[in-house]
Amino acid sequence: MACDFLKLAVAGVQSLQPYQPGKPIEELERELGISNSIKLASNENPLGPSPKALAAIEQSLKELARYPDSNGHLLKQALYQRFALKPEQITLGNGSNDLLEMIARCFLQPGTEAVFSEYSFIVYPLVTQACGAQGVIAPAREFGHNLQAMAEAVTDKTRLVFIANPNNPTGTYVSSRELCAFLDHLPQQVLVVLDEAYTEYVTREDFPNGLDLLARYPNLIVTRTFSKAYGLAALRVGYAVAHPEITDLLNRVRQPFNVNTPALAAAAAMLEDSEYLEKSLALNTRGLDQLTQGLRALGLGYIPSVANFITLDLARNALPVYQALLKEGVIVRPLGVYAMPHHLRISVGTDAENTRFLRALKKVLAC
Amino acid sequence: MACDFLKLAVAGVQSLQPYQPGKPIEELERELGISNSIKLASNENPLGPSPKALAAIEQSLKELARYPDSNGHLLKQALYQRFALKPEQITLGNGSNDLLEMIARCFLQPGTEAVFSEYSFIVYPLVTQACGAQGVIAPAREFGHNLQAMAEAVTDKTRLVFIANPNNPTGTYVSSRELCAFLDHLPQQVLVVLDEAYTEYVTREDFPNGLDLLARYPNLIVTRTFSKAYGLAALRVGYAVAHPEITDLLNRVRQPFNVNTPALAAAAAMLEDSEYLEKSLALNTRGLDQLTQGLRALGLGYIPSVANFITLDLARNALPVYQALLKEGVIVRPLGVYAMPHHLRISVGTDAENTRFLRALKKVLAC
Repeated sequence: MACDFLKLAVAGVQSLQPYQPGKPIEELERELGISNSIKLASNENPLGPSPKALAAIEQSLKELARYPDSNGHLLKQALYQRFALKPEQITLGNGSNDLLEMIARCFLQPGTEAVFSEYSFIVYPLVTQACGAQGVIAPAREFGHNLQAMAEAVTDKTRLVFIANPNNPTGTYVSSRELCAFLDHLPQQVLVVLDEAYTEYVTREDFPNGLDLLARYPNLIVTRTFSKAYGLAALRVGYAVAHPEITDLLNRVRQPFNVNTPALAAAAAMLEDSEYLEKSLALNTRGLDQLTQGLRALGLGYIPSVANFITLDLARNALPVYQALLKEGVIVRPLGVYAMPHHLRISVGTDAENTRFLRALKKVLAC
Repeated sequence: MACDFLKLAVAGVQSLQPYQPGKPIEELERELGISNSIKLASNENPLGPSPKALAAIEQSLKELARYPDSNGHLLKQALYQRFALKPEQITLGNGSNDLLEMIARCFLQPGTEAVFSEYSFIVYPLVTQACGAQGVIAPAREFGHNLQAMAEAVTDKTRLVFIANPNNPTGTYVSSRELCAFLDHLPQQVLVVLDEAYTEYVTREDFPNGLDLLARYPNLIVTRTFSKAYGLAALRVGYAVAHPEITDLLNRVRQPFNVNTPALAAAAAMLEDSEYLEKSLALNTRGLDQLTQGLRALGLGYIPSVANFITLDLARNALPVYQALLKEGVIVRPLGVYAMPHHLRISVGTDAENTRFLRALKKVLAC
């Protein structure tokens, strides 16, 4: 007879909810008997693969049977070329998620706290709890970060503050002025994780660039990803930029070969692929306009977004609408897990995908 | 002024030694002014990429901008086809290392212990320490696992026992009889991690297949990898097989998209590529013979190996020999970090690579 394995697990893991992944598009189509569905659910780049990334991957596959470069030398060189980041500031991650977890594992343990906002990225509470630390949720302001409330949530036990800028799943942002005011008054032993997964999409003048703030705030850790604007979600690669002492700690818990070879090659190539990035941003800006205009025409509320998705407010249980959209072959993201049961998050797609979504939504709401 | 960030880290990380990765071959060649060097240092598959893996990767790259399937549905299907493993037994990892870390994070914390053998894989003490738990080293027997000593090292605080079979870096193995005797007497609340990274290479009749033992020992976790015999080290993919309750716990701490899309596709393809596997094993068996005969001809001692590497005993400080081999363009692995300063670990290469290594070694030792 097996013993009770759950009882053997550490406390944080015992109470952790198993992650419920979305179904692959193929599985969904099989279940619903549909085809040609579109996925606007994971904030992926609708442009698809960059030819430059594909070429770099192709080249890297000669070394398929060899371990990746543990140091990510060439990608770090490319980050130096592009952003003047030094190797001793950089930690490479198997996507941003890996970096968020490394940060939590370095600084969180039972008896400590991490502060994050209501309606912010779900990975923050997950990595906090897995380390047995206490998550402290600061109330949001209009679905975005309320940095005043976050400052008030900081205690002697606080080790980390997570800020997503722009925020996922709401698309809101904090301005340079707000962020600096927050950082200026924060105790220096509290580390701030500025998650800039969507930073490339933002066109606002008062939007801060975390990399520019590192010299002024040594307790700042900026995380970025190649999964969004750079179109490499399949490969899993991101990076954290921080003070060298923090970087040294993160690299102690980093798995030596955490980033795979094609990811290293493709990410380095994408840093030089300004054409793809510009096309992505233009497509997104246009798509955000298209979606907001379409939602307004339908008389629907939404949270103003600066990212590559928009969250609409149905002012009633959104799940039936989500399910009706599925039957129309349009996959979006319900936000019940974020305690936003009236909202749906829609990733910006191609012009045609956005049109199809708006038509499907109109049809579904008319039923 | 930055504060002392080291002081802010959790205790286990504060005392963790930063991982020192090997240099990429290109960097080494630049430094030494050499070219055409060969790498027999990381137990990689000398056959290079399988065409079937490359074809599967190519196909998967259409979805480069999309997140991987978090569930790894197709790879789990392939594991079912190949080994009759059920999805609820399987945890997919970003290489075995990822799995070893997940296991440690689920079951280890300050106040608990993990037992592993002297001269065994360095990742076991690393993941143990990162969780703030105590590593307990059982003395080896002829550089292999002494399961009697490991059983004696188990206390009330022991949560995990790590057994590498075959063992890295020594190439030794424990037999079915020895392993079952150990498992039969172990308290059932102690979990045993049977790391079978090199299992495909073993040709001995008395070598156990961990998968066959799972039904009998519900406290057993078997880990395997596609980085060795399957030739996919660059992509990072492995799997753990365990009781569904343990699997549920591991998947709680698993990063939702920990295995990248090309890795999922290539691993599934390799499970059906019996031709590549057979060629790999034949090459390895021949190469092990070639290396052992060559070492004997040079009058050198070695640890008898059943894996894809062999560890030779120079009976004196091995570092100068390692460095002299480097200048000959042959990269092998010194084992100082394993407290084996007289040994060098040599991965089995192609026939030509093995010949070149033996010639270089002869030359170096004659100096």
